[in-house]
Amino acid sequence: MAEPATIPEHCQQILADAVYGTLTTIRHKDGLPSTNPVAYVWDGEQLRISTLKSRVKYRNLAANPAMAFCVVSPQDITQYVELRGHATLADDPDRSFFREQFKRGMGGAEPPPDLDPPDAERVVITLHPQQVSSPTLYGGRLSTAARKELT
Amino acid sequence: MAEPATIPEHCQQILADAVYGTLTTIRHKDGLPSTNPVAYVWDGEQLRISTLKSRVKYRNLAANPAMAFCVVSPQDITQYVELRGHATLADDPDRSFFREQFKRGMGGAEPPPDLDPPDAERVVITLHPQQVSSPTLYGGRLSTAARKELT
Repeated sequence: MAEPATIPEHCQQILADAVYGTLTTIRHKDGLPSTNPVAYVWDGEQLRISTLKSRVKYRNLAANPAMAFCVVSPQDITQYVELRGHATLADDPDRSFFREQFKRGMGGAEPPPDLDPPDAERVVITLHPQQVSSPTLYGGRLSTAARKELT
Repeated sequence: MAEPATIPEHCQQILADAVYGTLTTIRHKDGLPSTNPVAYVWDGEQLRISTLKSRVKYRNLAANPAMAFCVVSPQDITQYVELRGHATLADDPDRSFFREQFKRGMGGAEPPPDLDPPDAERVVITLHPQQVSSPTLYGGRLSTAARKELT
């Protein structure tokens, strides 16, 4: 396991503020990357994401743990943080992590009991980021007015 | 080249509405995916993205053209479209495509002349999507109120 990366303070803020990010895995079938939005929990050091064993992203990570996660600032879309590394997978048999994640994005509301299909098996994807990138779009040379126009 | 995918109408709408998406390439250095937000132009059939030859994403695609592009609906973050396939790269010596892309996101404004570093070489990444995914988060089982809470 590579050394964990240091997360700069402005990245901590973006990760704390946003409610979703885009998770990328590499498809075990054809080697193409696959990127889609997911809810997450960031605790300052590790990123956790709830998914189902039936999902392609789970099967991809089981075959190849390489992953990336990108969060764009809800306040300014020219600011973002990207975390990269290798995921670990763990069962969530009592769905306690799933409930924690759902409540974070929903102002404390519990997930509806029928949100998952029957027999769904929840798992937790965990990333201790090994690489962090957080450049500003256009190297920060966009005017404040232009950044507002975009967001 | 694989057959181009058919793009459903609701995906066309998301691609027309949003101003940025997340581009994923696979790093030639270590095989990890890399995902970050970029502006783009979608013409109904092909996706084009302007970048610089100096960027890691350009070097990654030159070594491995596998890419994914994800756009989340600005109106409802549980709706998104993901395009996957193999990119082609072309020079943009007069920067005409870069200007087109910039103006799209900026209400018609021209890019500032000093936006790029001196000697920057603009290129166009083009994707004719070979695969399209557009599921709804939680399989559409989230209430309208919950979807508003998230967006």
